[in-house]
Parts: sequence; C-alpha cells; structure tokens
Amino acid sequence: MELKIKTSNWSAGLPVAMINKRVAERLGVHAGDRIIIKTYSKNPKEIITILDTSDTFVKTGFIAISTEVKKRLNLREGQRVNIAYSETPESVLFIKEKINGEELSDEKIKAIIRDVVNNSLTEPEVAVFVSAMYRNGMTFKETISLINSILASGKTLKFRNKYVVDKHCIGGVAGNRTTPLVVSICVAAGLTMPKTSSRAITSAAGTADCIETIAKVEFPMDKVKKIVQNTGGCMTWGGSLGMVPADSKIIKVEKMLKLDPIAQLLASIMSKKLAVGSKYILIDIPYGKNAKVSKSKGLFLKKKFEQLAKHFKVKMKVVLTKADEPIGDGIGPALEIIDVMKILNPAEEGPKDLEKKSLFLSGQILEMTGTAKKGKGVKLAKEILESGKAWKKFKEIIKEQEGNLDGLEMGKHRRDIHSNKSGKIKSINNKLINALARSAGCPLDKFSGVFLHCHVGKKVKKGDKLLTLYSESKPRLGEATNFYNKTNPIKI
Amino acid sequence: MELKIKTSNWSAGLPVAMINKRVAERLGVHAGDRIIIKTYSKNPKEIITILDTSDTFVKTGFIAISTEVKKRLNLREGQRVNIAYSETPESVLFIKEKINGEELSDEKIKAIIRDVVNNSLTEPEVAVFVSAMYRNGMTFKETISLINSILASGKTLKFRNKYVVDKHCIGGVAGNRTTPLVVSICVAAGLTMPKTSSRAITSAAGTADCIETIAKVEFPMDKVKKIVQNTGGCMTWGGSLGMVPADSKIIKVEKMLKLDPIAQLLASIMSKKLAVGSKYILIDIPYGKNAKVSKSKGLFLKKKFEQLAKHFKVKMKVVLTKADEPIGDGIGPALEIIDVMKILNPAEEGPKDLEKKSLFLSGQILEMTGTAKKGKGVKLAKEILESGKAWKKFKEIIKEQEGNLDGLEMGKHRRDIHSNKSGKIKSINNKLINALARSAGCPLDKFSGVFLHCHVGKKVKKGDKLLTLYSESKPRLGEATNFYNKTNPIKI
Repeated sequence: MELKIKTSNWSAGLPVAMINKRVAERLGVHAGDRIIIKTYSKNPKEIITILDTSDTFVKTGFIAISTEVKKRLNLREGQRVNIAYSETPESVLFIKEKINGEELSDEKIKAIIRDVVNNSLTEPEVAVFVSAMYRNGMTFKETISLINSILASGKTLKFRNKYVVDKHCIGGVAGNRTTPLVVSICVAAGLTMPKTSSRAITSAAGTADCIETIAKVEFPMDKVKKIVQNTGGCMTWGGSLGMVPADSKIIKVEKMLKLDPIAQLLASIMSKKLAVGSKYILIDIPYGKNAKVSKSKGLFLKKKFEQLAKHFKVKMKVVLTKADEPIGDGIGPALEIIDVMKILNPAEEGPKDLEKKSLFLSGQILEMTGTAKKGKGVKLAKEILESGKAWKKFKEIIKEQEGNLDGLEMGKHRRDIHSNKSGKIKSINNKLINALARSAGCPLDKFSGVFLHCHVGKKVKKGDKLLTLYSESKPRLGEATNFYNKTNPIKI
Repeated sequence: MELKIKTSNWSAGLPVAMINKRVAERLGVHAGDRIIIKTYSKNPKEIITILDTSDTFVKTGFIAISTEVKKRLNLREGQRVNIAYSETPESVLFIKEKINGEELSDEKIKAIIRDVVNNSLTEPEVAVFVSAMYRNGMTFKETISLINSILASGKTLKFRNKYVVDKHCIGGVAGNRTTPLVVSICVAAGLTMPKTSSRAITSAAGTADCIETIAKVEFPMDKVKKIVQNTGGCMTWGGSLGMVPADSKIIKVEKMLKLDPIAQLLASIMSKKLAVGSKYILIDIPYGKNAKVSKSKGLFLKKKFEQLAKHFKVKMKVVLTKADEPIGDGIGPALEIIDVMKILNPAEEGPKDLEKKSLFLSGQILEMTGTAKKGKGVKLAKEILESGKAWKKFKEIIKEQEGNLDGLEMGKHRRDIHSNKSGKIKSINNKLINALARSAGCPLDKFSGVFLHCHVGKKVKKGDKLLTLYSESKPRLGEATNFYNKTNPIKI
C-alpha cells in the first residue's frame, strides 16, 4: 500500500510508525504488529517498525513516523513510501535455541544480528537474546561469529598509517576519564588514534557523553576520517557512525535491563576496534572492591581478549588496574571533562590519580608501538603532557570536532554534603557514587553529577564538605540527596 | 506537574503517553523513560507508562495517552492529571536474580507481579522474566508464590452453589474446541460453571476468540456474576475481568516470544480457576506427535497440577488425551464455533471426533461431582446432548452474553487446496495446520482459518479437496498458500 510520510518530530525511543485505524484494517494489520516501510528511490531503502494506530493523529493516506525512522531512511514530509505487513522472523527461533542453552551456528548468529539491525526483532526479543547470552554464555566460536556479524552489519574505516592504535577501558570506575588524556598524548607523539567511544551503559558517563559537553561527537564516516587525517586522532561517538549498528541497539537494551553479558562485552569492544582498523590495542580492566570485576574475573577476561586478538591478528596488551575508589574528582559528563582539561593545561592543576593512570596507559601504548623504549613509555608520556603538546593536540581535535572550551556551566541546582563527624576517609564506594551521580541525572543531563572534595586517606573534620551534588532538576537533586543519606557511600 | 488529558484513540498495543518536548525538558524526562500519571480524584488512581515526546502532536499543557491508558484509568478529554518521573523499580534486580538461577522469595515474586500489573516494568523486562522462568524453571514454592501473587493482583468471584466446576485444556491441538460443549452439557446437568477462557497464545484460536464471533466476551465482574446466576454458566474472556491482570500481561509477552514456561502455565491456569471460586477442576492434557507435550511431559504436568490442587484444597482430575491430528473440521475462531453448533443442534451433524471428546470430558465432570455414578458420566452427557438440553443451554448463555447466532460469514477470500495424488491420508501435522491457520490471519481475523475436508485414514483421489483456506486479506491468503506448499502438512 502506498502512503505519504508525515514527519512530526515524534521521539519514541525506538523506530515506530502510526497509521490510521481504517488503513490498518484495510491492510489487515494491528497495533503492535511489525510493518515494513520501503522507499521508491532507485536504490530502495527499507526499515521494519512496530505499528501504532490512531484515528485522529494520522489521516488515511498518510503514515506518521518517529524521528528514529526518519533519521534512518532520511525521509522527508510528503514522500511516498510502500507499506506492507512483516512476518515474525526466523531468528526468533534461534533466540529460543540460545535460551535453551544450545550453541548457535555462524549463520544463526548472523541472522539474529541482521534482524537486530534491520529492526525485524522487537525490543523484548532483543532483551531475551541479551539475557540468554548473559545466562548461558557464548562459546569462543559463537563470540567470533558475534564479532564478525556485528562488523558485517556496519561500515569500517581504514588508515594508511602503520601505527593505528586504540585503547579501551571496560569501565566500572567512577570518574575514570583517561581516554581524552591518552588520545591527546599518543596523537601528540605521532600515532594515529581514531577513537570512537560509547555513551554510558551503567555508569554515570561515557567518554562520548563527556566530549559532548564541549564538542560534537556525532559525525558521518567521511568527516571522522577527515578529522583523523587532519589531526591524527578523534574522540567521537561510535554509535553515530553506522559502524556497528547492531552493537548500539543491543547496548540500548542492556542499559534498560542493566545486564552486560561477557560475550557481548567482548564482541562490542573487539568489533569497534576492528571497525576503525586498529592494529595496536590496549585494554584496561579495572578490578577490585566495587569495581565492575574482581581480579579473577579480570584475568579471565584478559585471557579471552588475548585469544580474540590472536584470532583477528592484532597486537594487544591487556592491563589490570586496581580500582577501589573513584578516580579524579568529578563524576558526570561535564565534571569529568573539567578534570581532564585541568590535567592537560600546564597552567592548571588537575587530580593527580587520574593524571598518573593516564600516563601509565599512554606509556603502554608508546612502548607497544616502539615509540618509546621498553620501560621509558611513562617518561615520554609525561614529557609530552608537561610540555603542553598534549593540551595543544586536545584543543586541535576539539576544534576540528566543532567544539568550544568556554561556557561549561554546571547544573542549576546544587547541594553540598557535609561530614557529620571527624576522622579519616576509610572508603568511597565506586558503585554507590556511580548510582548517586545517576540519580542526580547522569548521563543524560550532562551538567549533573558528583564532585568529590575528598579521597580515601584524607582527614576530615565534622562539617567539612565531602561532596557536591549537581542537577538540572530539583526533584532529582532531592532524590540524589535521599539516595546519599540512605546508602552512605563514604565511610569515615 | 499538572497536565490536561488529550485522548486521541491512539492504540500502541501497550500503555504509552506523549508530552511536548519542552514539557519533557522542564520535567527532566526523556523519550523511553517511565512516568507516573495520577488522577486528582478522591481515590486517586495511577498508572506508570513509557513516555514518547513530540513537538507537534501534543501542545504544552497537555498529555496524549494511548487507549490502553485511557481504559485503565477511565480518563476523559481535558481531565487534569499529575505527571512525575518514575524510577526503575527494585523488581528489575529480582528478575536479574532469577536469570542467574536463584530461587526468589515470596516477597520478591509479589514485587515483580505487582510491578507487572502497575506497569512499572517495561515489556523487555517482562520478556526477560518470562525467559528466565522458561530457562531456569520455578520451584514448587515459587510456583505457589506466583499463583498467590497473580490472584492477589486482581479480583475474585464467589458462588454459593456447592458444585462450582471448571475445566481447562492446555491446548496445542488444532480445532479442539471442547469448552462450549462441556459448559453447555454440564450446566444443563445443573452444575455451576463460570468459565473464563483465554484468547489464543500460540494457537489459531482460543475459546474467547471463538465465542466472540457470535457474542460478547468482555464484561465487567458484576455482569459476569449475573450471567452465571441467571443461566448457571458463562463463556467469557478472562482477561477483561481484571481478575488476573498480571497473567494477561505476561501472556501478551509470551505470545510475542512464542515462549510458554511451565511455571507460568501452571500459575496461569490455577490462578484463573481459583479466581472464579472453582471447587472441582478437570484438566485436559492432549499429548502426542505434534501436540504441545509428549506423554512423559504430560505426566509430569499432571503430577504438578495434583500437587497444586492439594495445596489449594480443590478437587481435581487430570486426564491425558491422545492427540496426533487436529480435532474437528474447522480451525479458526468462526470455523470452530460452527463445528460446535453443529454438534449441539440435534437437527444437525457435527464432527464426530470433537463430539466424542467433549462427551468424555463432560462425563468426567459429571462423575467428579457425583451428578453421574462412576462409569455412567459419558452416558448422561450423551443424553443431555441428544435431548437438545445442551443446545438450549448454549443459546441461553449466548443470549445472556448479548449474542446472536446468525450472520456468521467467513472471510472474503478463500482458496481450495486439492490433492495432487490418490491414496490414504497418512498424517495431518497439528503444529503445521495451526501455523497455516495463523498465516491466514488467525486469531485476530476471526473469519479466517482452515477447513479440513479429510481426516487421517480417509481415502482421497487426485484432485479431491483436502482443505479450504479462508482469509480477510488477499496477501495473507497468498502467504498461507505458500506456507502450505512449502510445509506440506498433510501426508498421503
């Protein structure tokens, strides 16, 4: 059936379309069904969406589409498209096999990922796939298939430079914003670092969320290539590139469920590194009390990563870093980028723990690529940082990403939390500080978060400021305060 | 924040609401978030929904709601309601525990079911709970908790009559529409049978779908009570009564995923029977080739049901019935009710296999309650059927349900399928015939389906009609024909 597009700036959080009830009857489809929308262009594009129906929002002859559909097919008001009923895809059966604990063949995993990308699978179906991976695990073969399927679902980048490097942190440590520092140092040292980052899944901020407070992070592929060719590096959002669209969709569901299956974690990281053509990869696995993983799980992941690196023929180093408390002072997109800039700018003073960790990671990459001799990586990284070269490179990349370092203004509402006794800070719970920042509005409200006035070991007096909460919304500030009082994340 | 209701006859298949983008910003919420809508009445009602945003569909000051929300809170155009952000409920963590294979406490299951009912859990979250139950199973204690939680989530019925009976078939056999026959016979024998039925989950038709072709099946609680008081029985849809709302929501997700975990199956059946106050329950478990369960799984279910009956102090009989091929001639809501009426009406001739099975089941109930002596149940059932008393009772109930026996007209499009060779019918695949009827439009298109012109053992000649496909939509008739040719469900 032919209908005309009605765009309405309607965001539903996922691709949906709405047609008039009478049109639905004629087509034999119902609210909740899947339909396929196809353009009439020379190279027809199509998308499968879930259907809503209404008899007032949309006239017969039209189909209203959510912004998620509009963006995907690049549709314009009034454009004619073809609409048809879409059956339940076969991959639903493969998901059921995975729930039952069966090993899926390469073809079946490809089919699931293809259907995730073209939207044939609904969010509940993707959710069940994620929970099945989480519950039953994936074999090495399945993980390889998952990586290849995710890679095949999108586009890839290639650079001529021999030293294309990348780093990744599996996350879980509040405030641990090393990426912009490592990129600035390594690129200033002459390496190519096309860094694509994610947004927060379960944390208060991802690198993409942080960079977005001062620059753009969503660019088309060509532009990213240009940024890297002009400056040597970039700090963009991986999800916007259409490089690993399957990964982005799966991550969206993981966020909702707060589930993070290992195979998907491995596949997500590996596919992104391979998609940008990295030849040297550093993986940072923070472990410890209240970190994402224990030391033994960290070592398990290290082994898995090394097996995958061997299979995909890339040079990799995996480091386990101890992390019992937050790193840096700020937790939240804007607060973390402020920490980063204080460290980069030789005229300012930033948090020492974050600086030290970033120098360590940069040193590893400099040594892996032979830019520094063995054991001399940290020294070279420190020289580059102190000389102001890294700060210059950072500003160069931010400028190329249409950014601006001025005007970082924290959330409208703030509240200081004071110590109710004197003593020494015994512990700061990573997970709870993370949750605290989220309850204040992170990661979506970029100017919300937690600023720590203390770290473990510091002596405080009764009435001293322990931390400051920032939020864009008053009710959320209240929620965060209640959360703090209930959970008491700082022990004295 | 106070907003005015805008009703728009917008069906989304689940409760959603839409506010203007600017209002969302002020409230600090985003598309995909959960919000809570609360009325200002003396006894305020509330619902949690997923949020859409738009800057054209809804003006600031208004909130558009889907019909699913409108129905639930009984809202009217322009009514003032209060809107607030709603946090992720704790029950998401309990679902995660279940994925991990842990046994859930009574309190945790109650919390999950409460959040399913009040909509705090999203469909992907409910989906993951269903798949976790499916994958990990539920202990006896968990199953009891599930039944009690589902019961507590809704309303219940009570009748004074001592002999309140019920029957249930776990399904899986195409065309097996025994319920209207058993109700008509048992009620005509003087028993009280407040039968609430489901709509199809994975089959072509549920009893509610069938009855709906000739009468109303959705009534408020009071009216159902009245129908039963006036006639002795009813044949209504369980989902409309608000008796087990949790069950209806879970079933909706099960339908999408085509998953049917045992604990949920047991809980779904038991809670519905207990909610209408049944004291005598007959459970029919068809088993065999292409049925839902094998004989051993049937026996396993029988044991589980008997344990539950003992716990809940009701008298129960579980019968296993062999079912290798469809029962009756018609498969699809209208086609099955036509079969039923042919059997009930002493002036007509209906399919003998369906008649025989219904007499057997009725006989069991008549014996359980002492209405017939042991071994004489089928004989009494047959007398009631042949005398026309059951037919009279059926018409009485249908009339009380505002029904009408005229005007059953099958789908606009039909196609006969002919045999391409001569020989004896060797087998008819239940599952494939079911899927065939669904591809023609069942269960939503009530006048679509499959009419079988043959059963196993019948001799056919090349060119003889094997079956007729009916559909409301031409593309679906085409799809069904293709499906038939691809799967070949009748072997000669």
